[in-house]
Amino acid sequence: MIRLTATDASFASAFETLVAARREASSDVTRDVAAIIADVRDRGEPALRDLTQRLDRHDLDATGWRIAPETCAAAFAALDPDLRTALELAAARIKAYHEKQRPLDTDDTDSAGVRLGARWTPVDAAGLYVPGGRAAYPSSLLMNAIPAKVAGVKRLAMVTPTPDGTINDLVLAAAHLVGIDEIWRVGGAQGIAALAYGAGRIAPVDVITGPGNAWVAEAKRQLYGVVGIDMVAGPSEIVVVADAQNDPEWTAADLLSQAEHDTTTQSILFTDDAAYANAVAAAVDRQLSTLATEAVARVAWDANGAIIVVESLADAAPLVDRLAPEHLQLAIPDPQAFFDRIRHAGSVFLGRYTPEAIGDYVAGPNHVLPTGRRARFASGLSVLDFMKRTSFLQLDEDALRELGPATVALAKAEGLPAHARSVALRLRLNT
Amino acid sequence: MIRLTATDASFASAFETLVAARREASSDVTRDVAAIIADVRDRGEPALRDLTQRLDRHDLDATGWRIAPETCAAAFAALDPDLRTALELAAARIKAYHEKQRPLDTDDTDSAGVRLGARWTPVDAAGLYVPGGRAAYPSSLLMNAIPAKVAGVKRLAMVTPTPDGTINDLVLAAAHLVGIDEIWRVGGAQGIAALAYGAGRIAPVDVITGPGNAWVAEAKRQLYGVVGIDMVAGPSEIVVVADAQNDPEWTAADLLSQAEHDTTTQSILFTDDAAYANAVAAAVDRQLSTLATEAVARVAWDANGAIIVVESLADAAPLVDRLAPEHLQLAIPDPQAFFDRIRHAGSVFLGRYTPEAIGDYVAGPNHVLPTGRRARFASGLSVLDFMKRTSFLQLDEDALRELGPATVALAKAEGLPAHARSVALRLRLNT
Repeated sequence: MIRLTATDASFASAFETLVAARREASSDVTRDVAAIIADVRDRGEPALRDLTQRLDRHDLDATGWRIAPETCAAAFAALDPDLRTALELAAARIKAYHEKQRPLDTDDTDSAGVRLGARWTPVDAAGLYVPGGRAAYPSSLLMNAIPAKVAGVKRLAMVTPTPDGTINDLVLAAAHLVGIDEIWRVGGAQGIAALAYGAGRIAPVDVITGPGNAWVAEAKRQLYGVVGIDMVAGPSEIVVVADAQNDPEWTAADLLSQAEHDTTTQSILFTDDAAYANAVAAAVDRQLSTLATEAVARVAWDANGAIIVVESLADAAPLVDRLAPEHLQLAIPDPQAFFDRIRHAGSVFLGRYTPEAIGDYVAGPNHVLPTGRRARFASGLSVLDFMKRTSFLQLDEDALRELGPATVALAKAEGLPAHARSVALRLRLNT
Repeated sequence: MIRLTATDASFASAFETLVAARREASSDVTRDVAAIIADVRDRGEPALRDLTQRLDRHDLDATGWRIAPETCAAAFAALDPDLRTALELAAARIKAYHEKQRPLDTDDTDSAGVRLGARWTPVDAAGLYVPGGRAAYPSSLLMNAIPAKVAGVKRLAMVTPTPDGTINDLVLAAAHLVGIDEIWRVGGAQGIAALAYGAGRIAPVDVITGPGNAWVAEAKRQLYGVVGIDMVAGPSEIVVVADAQNDPEWTAADLLSQAEHDTTTQSILFTDDAAYANAVAAAVDRQLSTLATEAVARVAWDANGAIIVVESLADAAPLVDRLAPEHLQLAIPDPQAFFDRIRHAGSVFLGRYTPEAIGDYVAGPNHVLPTGRRARFASGLSVLDFMKRTSFLQLDEDALRELGPATVALAKAEGLPAHARSVALRLRLNT
């Protein structure tokens, strides 16, 4: 953990170092991934079978390529009742939030008699990657699948590795709840390639979303353009802005809820009170020792954590904007006034009773958010990621007469005579 | 040009061959581009100067790094009056169309007392690539810059190669009209890298759009994630659906207006009348011989053109959907009924008096559209490409009491105890 004080002479450069710090692993898997993709593209199912045998140590023909809907239904039925209620509440609230994202079509005729509009339609099929092992979160499955459902996507195909044949029951239960249509026991770059190009019994999809390791992320990058993908995600981060009126234990738990995700995650506290900063740092140390995720959280906090003491909380706004954080929690008296000064953040949590964790699960907004300063230009996952817009245009002869001469002039200036001719013929103009 | 008849036994496989045909050059510039990006990132301005000297044969320190606003204003003032009026009409109409794309913010409080919303903001700075030479189209500059302006982007920086120091006056005039803030005489992958990372006097941007050659496209691909980019674009295409009531000359000009762009472009005609198909093919041949762009258009038509005769025009709808064309022109009696059956197309031109060329220049919708079947999942360039959405959430103690227990249950099930603790502490729950 580093500690910065805004009044220090070295603060500006130390803060810029923090902004520029790259926590993203630069593991060079480009070539390996390209080879896997080419193999799946060329050979299809046999490639998937070979790669799964090698990497996940099971034979797809023996364990079964697909996980049956009945298996998912059984996992859902076997859920602890509290957990089932919690998942259902989460699904309902996520659905309600995302329904407000459905875009509106337009269809207007202007004064020149030109009909212009835009029509939104869902993609035909979406592919969902779900990691195996520790990072297989049912909440993540909900956050990826529900926007696709709300968009109206007819086919949701999920791929997930089942190392040694093992399956995560909680993920299967969530898949049942949201109505995944197909689940394939294929993971890694080969799973992404199968979704993008199709492979035998696995039909291709149009958009692929969902988190994964470096191989999965690189496969999505390489296949961007063959299919649509969600934003390339890096390590997660939170910025908490808190004054001394907060219980230091609450703030410490907020910082640790980010740190426990992964050793590369980052938690940053801005406060205007040095004594409070000390109290939070002490609370973090104390809580770490009783945390089941201590091993991960301690590394993340030590390596990437930061506490920044500013003279006034108002000074923090431009600094937060420079960081363009994935999560921004505002535990201050007037969080809205602070939020109004922020241009770049993935998701904002206003007030002392809005811990970021509430947004990870049940509140409704998506928890798939832009990381690593990408909130400068990117948004969280939404219904729009599973839809596309077709523009349209309709002119009659009179309207063409209004717009035709300008079109002919521009086409000729650009050296495109057939463009000019296609208009001129209809209007009997000379070109 | 290939000619297919839907009643032929071989039609299905011939059509799938057409769908699967890849017209995209697979020039492997990956390594060259990676080296250029690394050079610009590491050395900044000196790298740009060296690369420009080598590739564009002029010394930036001598010719000047930046093209002055006064040069653009002078180019605009010197325009032929008709062309100036045409550009102004185009800009005004493009602006009016894109203003309808501005997304709405949401801010609601639900029955659980949870305030939820989404706020849209523009990116701080957008970078615009404009090719040099033949492909430097002022219309393209309008189509890329105006959505950024409508989004509210404060800084528009353009990069463009000026080979041997030469400048395209029409492009400069368009830059003046739309209000580009900076124009840098840097092209290629080095121009994209300079926009993404910044290089000395060139400050970094958040989003880069605009067409370019294989080096430019690959640079955008490699820098996707460092900045936002528009969709990777391939060769352009048009599908025209026309019955025998159309003048074959009109249809021929429509097909050629696509073919004259580049030797890799594709023009496809669907019709229900074999005699009409013959008449159009003859008209294409006749018009080619009088076209200044004959050399390009003939290669494109010969290599990639297609005429497909179907029994009934209604049969064409699912075939068109398989192609998911960038441009779809419907020169038929009831174009709306046909459009209602289409799910995938970039832009649709309804009726006999709506040649695609009208959409390239002045109608209003964007002409930057998804190519190569990407309309299955992608949309044309829009205001949304220059904006991002921040979700937000505000709970009070009562609202947290509603959602807290479900959050705690899910966090514990996912093995994330600090998440559970951040909620439980606030509600004095045991975890």
